[in-house]
Amino acid sequence: MTVIKVAILGFGTVGEGVYRTIESHADDLEAVLGKKVEVAAILIKNKQRERNIRKNILVTTNFEDILNLPKLDIVIEAIVNKEPTYTFLQKAIERGCHIITANKEMFAHHGKQLIELAEQNNVSVGFEATVAGGIPVIQTLKQLLKINRVQQIQGILNGTSNFILTEMREKKWSFAEALLQAQENGYAEADPTNDVEGFDAFYKTMILSRLAFGEEPNWQDVEREGITSITSELIDAAEKLGLRFKHIASISNERGQIQVSVKPALVGKENPFYHVEGVENAVSVHSDIVGRITLQGPGAGMFPTASAVIEDLVYVCLNTQKDRSFKVEDTAVSDQQRSCKEELWFVHAQSNYFQSLPSNLIEQTFKQTYIIRATKREVEGLANQDKEISYFPIVGEYQTANEDKVLTAQ
Amino acid sequence: MTVIKVAILGFGTVGEGVYRTIESHADDLEAVLGKKVEVAAILIKNKQRERNIRKNILVTTNFEDILNLPKLDIVIEAIVNKEPTYTFLQKAIERGCHIITANKEMFAHHGKQLIELAEQNNVSVGFEATVAGGIPVIQTLKQLLKINRVQQIQGILNGTSNFILTEMREKKWSFAEALLQAQENGYAEADPTNDVEGFDAFYKTMILSRLAFGEEPNWQDVEREGITSITSELIDAAEKLGLRFKHIASISNERGQIQVSVKPALVGKENPFYHVEGVENAVSVHSDIVGRITLQGPGAGMFPTASAVIEDLVYVCLNTQKDRSFKVEDTAVSDQQRSCKEELWFVHAQSNYFQSLPSNLIEQTFKQTYIIRATKREVEGLANQDKEISYFPIVGEYQTANEDKVLTAQ
Repeated sequence: MTVIKVAILGFGTVGEGVYRTIESHADDLEAVLGKKVEVAAILIKNKQRERNIRKNILVTTNFEDILNLPKLDIVIEAIVNKEPTYTFLQKAIERGCHIITANKEMFAHHGKQLIELAEQNNVSVGFEATVAGGIPVIQTLKQLLKINRVQQIQGILNGTSNFILTEMREKKWSFAEALLQAQENGYAEADPTNDVEGFDAFYKTMILSRLAFGEEPNWQDVEREGITSITSELIDAAEKLGLRFKHIASISNERGQIQVSVKPALVGKENPFYHVEGVENAVSVHSDIVGRITLQGPGAGMFPTASAVIEDLVYVCLNTQKDRSFKVEDTAVSDQQRSCKEELWFVHAQSNYFQSLPSNLIEQTFKQTYIIRATKREVEGLANQDKEISYFPIVGEYQTANEDKVLTAQ
Repeated sequence: MTVIKVAILGFGTVGEGVYRTIESHADDLEAVLGKKVEVAAILIKNKQRERNIRKNILVTTNFEDILNLPKLDIVIEAIVNKEPTYTFLQKAIERGCHIITANKEMFAHHGKQLIELAEQNNVSVGFEATVAGGIPVIQTLKQLLKINRVQQIQGILNGTSNFILTEMREKKWSFAEALLQAQENGYAEADPTNDVEGFDAFYKTMILSRLAFGEEPNWQDVEREGITSITSELIDAAEKLGLRFKHIASISNERGQIQVSVKPALVGKENPFYHVEGVENAVSVHSDIVGRITLQGPGAGMFPTASAVIEDLVYVCLNTQKDRSFKVEDTAVSDQQRSCKEELWFVHAQSNYFQSLPSNLIEQTFKQTYIIRATKREVEGLANQDKEISYFPIVGEYQTANEDKVLTAQ
């Protein structure tokens, strides 16, 4: 009986979750793979700390020790930062190891190169854990929608932001109060920039874009906005119209043009995202044959993320097929095209009256809130006239306040 | 360049959808499979009817003509009824063809035998289209949750019933009015028994049970109830408590005991099923590592079902792995165990007062409606005392009317 030897880089929440799951599901792994899976080494940062790790496992602070093991089949990376992680994984691939990563920032930057290097070395790359935690969206796109042509992906990809927006609405809290709660619960870091400014969701979106469409837009062309501008007043005004703020990543392919944005938007009751609350994530995939499928589940956490890694472990061991790769020739984002498309907008003023009534007004349910149909350029023009205006797109359908009309937004 | 030769049995909605999709996605299929996919023959019932089918395809009413084709790789079955379908597919497997079926009734009855026969003949069986239309729940269980141990599956598996319940609630219609609408829309047959009495959902549930747990319970032991007992009065009473009726299939594995029911139940706002409306389907899978993942999407229709068949086509061609098979030793359903577990119940009386107040009352928000916590045996006892009582389980959480408590049901 041969053995599959695994190294785990990092022993934080994810690394430890992976280790515990390999131990607890040893029989299941052996039944599916026909081989025992054995953790051979764990890379740690601090040798002093007490850890509950089997005695016969190499625990080291030096990656070279791991690389020099006599037998090594899979390297699982659960660290943060781009470096030295990227270098470690390149070396692991060159040694002939499959790699599995949970590091979205590194993978958004270097995923393309790692996949190419892996192809040259006849090994596989697992990256399910980089997007939407335990929801198997990467493998759904790779394995289950091979013939369907993906046209659009929308997602709530950052659990921290979604938790903050949920708490603000439910408890009438300010952004600062909700952020503090997120930090107390361990959902947000001491420096929450990565989550609340939309960087984390942005990295995940780039990974999804590459997978679904073979390419991603120029990063600097992508509209990326976090949730720091959302006040409890805005949430309240939206709630009165049956709308909820969600931080939504959106990727679409319109006639070969990849359009990407990562920003707050509003959704109505009939949108599957309306009810995705707290740290949950959701991804909605629209494809040409099947139509829209929505996946919802835990977006983070020790075991949901470990699940993604362990199922990837099986995948890299058994995978003999060439991975899906959509090649899109022209991927430039057309700003002009985007500015010309009409959308529905939720427009909110800080004072009671607008200086000028928008000509394309659909309804004004409350003194400070308008719903308008306009292009992005038009709504920007409106905001330029009146600096106290904030505006957000409505995604999906909007049912007018007197419920006599359902309007379709983007 | 070799060619994959396909026969389609049946040219109704599903059969035609598959044919059109193979035509429209010929290039995609060739790119993924490395071979052209060619429809060689179509089995029809009525030779007289005009059909838009390529001239070089054999269109026949005789299955033997198809079986005698010089080359045949895959047989796709999109007929109804158990026979002669089962016999056709046995013959196809014995000839060395992969088979793909969309026929839930046949597959619920004979799936086990077909899979065994296919194993003996080294071919594969695709049955994604038998459950939840375009939602890839079968392949998610087979391919993406290989190490996760599935503990519970809940599903809205019959789009017709869900459509009727949605229309009854939204339009204050009677069951008969909503059924008529479903028939006019083409969602329900002239004889709607299969859908509204829960048989269709029952077959799908048996297929899921076998896949997730390796076995299904004795069919006669399964609680199967349709939606014909749900009145607009009941829907209204539930709505006042923030609850909605859904027709829910539930399969769980509690210490080796498979528990299955297919019946109307109530869900609150926080349950992902609350917002699954119209002909949509949804399946929620709870596994030990990842936790709960919910998939939502189109449960029927020409192209969603064709999507399931086409993705299965790729799967049977590329699949070289042994399919997941959970073996559960003891599968007897313990009625005693089930009767002893306490659940939350929505209890409704036709007259204004109950003869006796239940001792385990949680709240009585309206004169005719109670929420109680009780075992199945207790609530049955209550209904025996008063024949005008109807009762339904609450699935998930229930928030008491004054919103000070959230109670967890089953």
